[in-house]
Formats: sequence, C-alpha cells, structure tokens
Amino acid sequence: MIHSFLMIGQSNMAGRGYAKDVPLIIDEHIKMQRNGLWQMMTEPIHFDRPSSGVGLAASFAALWRLDHAQDEIGLIPCAEGGSSLDDWAVGGALFENTLSQARLAQRTSVIKGILWHQGENDCSPEQAKDYSEKLAVIIRTLRQELNIQEVPLIVGALGDYLSNGLFGQYFTAYPLVNDALVHFANSHSNSYFVTAQGLTANPDGIHFNAMSQRILGVRYYNAYRDLKHIFDPVTDEDKILSAIYERPYTKTEKSKLLEYEFTIGNMDGKEYLRQLGALG
Amino acid sequence: MIHSFLMIGQSNMAGRGYAKDVPLIIDEHIKMQRNGLWQMMTEPIHFDRPSSGVGLAASFAALWRLDHAQDEIGLIPCAEGGSSLDDWAVGGALFENTLSQARLAQRTSVIKGILWHQGENDCSPEQAKDYSEKLAVIIRTLRQELNIQEVPLIVGALGDYLSNGLFGQYFTAYPLVNDALVHFANSHSNSYFVTAQGLTANPDGIHFNAMSQRILGVRYYNAYRDLKHIFDPVTDEDKILSAIYERPYTKTEKSKLLEYEFTIGNMDGKEYLRQLGALG
Repeated sequence: MIHSFLMIGQSNMAGRGYAKDVPLIIDEHIKMQRNGLWQMMTEPIHFDRPSSGVGLAASFAALWRLDHAQDEIGLIPCAEGGSSLDDWAVGGALFENTLSQARLAQRTSVIKGILWHQGENDCSPEQAKDYSEKLAVIIRTLRQELNIQEVPLIVGALGDYLSNGLFGQYFTAYPLVNDALVHFANSHSNSYFVTAQGLTANPDGIHFNAMSQRILGVRYYNAYRDLKHIFDPVTDEDKILSAIYERPYTKTEKSKLLEYEFTIGNMDGKEYLRQLGALG
Repeated sequence: MIHSFLMIGQSNMAGRGYAKDVPLIIDEHIKMQRNGLWQMMTEPIHFDRPSSGVGLAASFAALWRLDHAQDEIGLIPCAEGGSSLDDWAVGGALFENTLSQARLAQRTSVIKGILWHQGENDCSPEQAKDYSEKLAVIIRTLRQELNIQEVPLIVGALGDYLSNGLFGQYFTAYPLVNDALVHFANSHSNSYFVTAQGLTANPDGIHFNAMSQRILGVRYYNAYRDLKHIFDPVTDEDKILSAIYERPYTKTEKSKLLEYEFTIGNMDGKEYLRQLGALG
C-alpha cells in the first residue's frame, strides 16, 4: 500500500526551481500520480505550467523514505500557479480537481498528509484578514470529503524575499499572510506551520529557487514527522540533503534514466540496449 | 463557451515528437486543461511521462481554429504511455481519470469530439481479435457517462514503421490492430478512421516523430470536419501546415512567451519588463 500525500496551493507548491541547480532526486519507491496511476517520481512533479520545476516534495519524500525503508510514498500533484485562496473555494475547479485526483489515489493508496503552500496571491491586508477562516473551510471540507480528518496538514510560510524583488510592490503585505498561516496552524488540530526563514528566490523574486525548495522539503518533513511547528531552520539542513543525494541508484532507477535518454533521442537504440544490458 | 476535445489512448496520442524538429504552434484561443482550468496551450500538452512531446492535437486544434476564427478550442489530455486496451477498461484508473477530467471540462466547455490513438500495446493476434469489441464497450460507456453520444470519435492507425524498428519483433501484428480500428470505425456511428500512411518515427522506431504528428493532426481534423474516414494522405499536408506556422503571434501570445522565458530564468526581470513594454 502506497502512503500518499496531497500537494495543493500555488506556484511555490507546484515548484519553479531550476532542476540544473540541484542534484537529481529519484527513488523507485517514490511515486507520483499521472492519469490516476503511479509512476516513478521525476521532477517536475507538477505540470501546471510549462515552467514547472523543482518543488519541495522531492526532498520531503526522500526524507520520508529514509524513515520508511520498506514502504512506498506517492505524491498527488494538484497545485496551480497564480491561484488565490478564493480560487481554491469549495466547489471550484481546483477543489473539485483535487477531490477527483485524491479519490483516484485512494483506490491504491492511503493519504497520509496534506502539503499546502499558498498565499502570494493574497498579499493584501483585506485578503490576509480572512485568510485563516477561508482556509479552514477549504481544509475542513477536503478532510470530510476524503475522510482524512486526522492526517497532518503542513502549511509553509511565504518567502521573506517577496517584498524586495522586482515585483516587490505586490507583496508588501506578505507578513500578514504568514501571520495568518501561523494563526491557522495554532488554532486547528493536525495542522503545522513551517518557516521560510533564510530561503531565497529565483531571479524573478517570486519563486523559491531549487536549493530553497529542497530545504523547505526538509522542514515540511520535520514538521510532519514530529507533529510540530518548525519556526526555525532545521539543524544541518545541508547535511540532511547530502545524505539524500549520496544514495546510490538501483538498477531500476538506472534503467528508467536510460529509457528517458533513449525516448527523447539523446541515445540511439543500440547504445540504449548496450547500456541496459550492462546494468546486469 | 469553449469547444473541447478529449484526448485518450497511449503514447502516440500523448505525443513523443521532439519539439525542436517542428515550428511552434501557439494560439491564445487554443487552450489545454490543467487542474480543471484552461490555459493557453503549449506543447507538451500531455504530461504522462517526462518524455512527453509533440502530439497530433496542436495541429488539429490550429486547423480547427482556421475554420472557427471567433471560437475557442480546449484540449483535455488523458492519454497514458504504454497503456493496453485492457488498461482502458471501464472502471479502471485511466477510464475514471478521463471521466473526472472530462466532467471538469464540461463545467466550462462543450465536448465536441474524442481523439483516440492506441494499439501498440495490443499487437498480438489474440489481442487484435478482441480489439474492436473491447473498444466499443469503452467508448459506449464513455459516451453514456458524459452524455456525448453523438460527438465524432476519430481513431488513428498505428505507424507502418512499427515492425521495422529495433523493437520491431514486438509489433509484427500491428496490421491486425489497424484492421480492427477500420472495422470499429466502419461498424459504429460517429466513428472515423485515419490512416498513418507515410508517417515516420523517432529513432526509437515506436513513436511518431514531430513532423508526422503534425501531419496526423491534419488528417484527424479532416476526418472530424468532413465526418469521413481518411484512408489516404490529405492533399497538400505540408502547405496546410505552412499556413498554420505563418500566422503571426498576437500580443497576448508574445507576452506569454516572454513570461515563460522570464520564469525559467532565460531573461532577467528588467529585460522582461522592457520587452513586455515594447509589445505596446
């Protein structure tokens, strides 16, 4: 049985980190959902935009795997870039799509957690004021509909870089959203907050860069594992990531990487079969 | 109201053509579904594999647009690489995912057609024998569930290159599948067959290359428009494609392309704003 996690929110949950900036994370026991089926995870996990890239879920899942060596984890990507909290209202397309994807996942997995990152599109005092209350309705309904009342929900802070970038004028109210996220986590059971302290952005000043997404995944996992808020960076985040990267690939993982190179035309058929055969 | 088209089948419906081999097709009035919402289509339209690439739907949609200058078309990607006809059985994950995605699309669009390409995974005399009957059950149920009994279904032939490639041994029975597809189209109303005559493959010998996918889209559209089988290549396929490529981009399309370059880090923020401003 796969242990699955629902990924919802906006672009920083979907992920816009540049893959070239960080080591690859793959693991044949980390799956992602596509068309209602599971396949080995590769980034981008989301496909909400052509610019989808590295998000927080890959390092989250890799850390989960270190603690669950015999089990499989499945990621259910439902985040949508540029979506406001109102876009996530119960009955809307994003909410309904999430329900349908989650229900497909529940045919072959048990949902063990909800990962939420959203709020850049709600950076005004008016929107921040209602944020916690609106989020509560969405999450409560989602839990009821999917019968996952008790699973941990992890919510992450918006990046402190937001108001400094080229588009910083649109994000001056971001601390109010972060306050709302803390308030939400403090006032709802099975809900945990994660800091974005020290994390940095792509040159756009909007999206966490790939390295920051990897770190954010470490923090989300710590919150999930320990069932507690993460108000400060986790000790030795870099070392934790190194442990993930140092894991040698299995034969199955190597063959999937070869298959990809062959399919996109980077390797001819004979070379593909030769290298596949060399895997033993 | 968007006119939408359901895309189902296996990898050659999803598309594995190399984008670098053909001119770009974008059009602000051609949409694709993501997370239950519509956004401007960009290839890959599918995301069933990291190797997803050019499929037949982009040129299909572009031709539809030439005949519907005032309307919008929406593509609903549900094809899954490597799927057999049995994987598409009613009640299975692929079928249920298709239903859920189609129902999301029906909130804001009217489904006007079904595009099917599948069969490489059914290339044995035993599987080909039951192909038409099995497909009939799938399509009949899909039509009933979605209340789209009358919309045209277009089914395309498998490529004649299949038995010649490096993996040709697995596809020797492909003509039997093509016979079954013809039989299906001939024996069911609102169903039309499209030839793959003359189309060629990626070096893998399995997937239509990008140029062939563009041509296949022309044939699918002709079958759809004229409600007839396409047993021979369409006259002037290259000229038809040239007409698509020659269409100048609108301001919205140019700004979407700029946004993409900016988001993936190919253009810094100041240059992005400068070029965006220059669009007028």
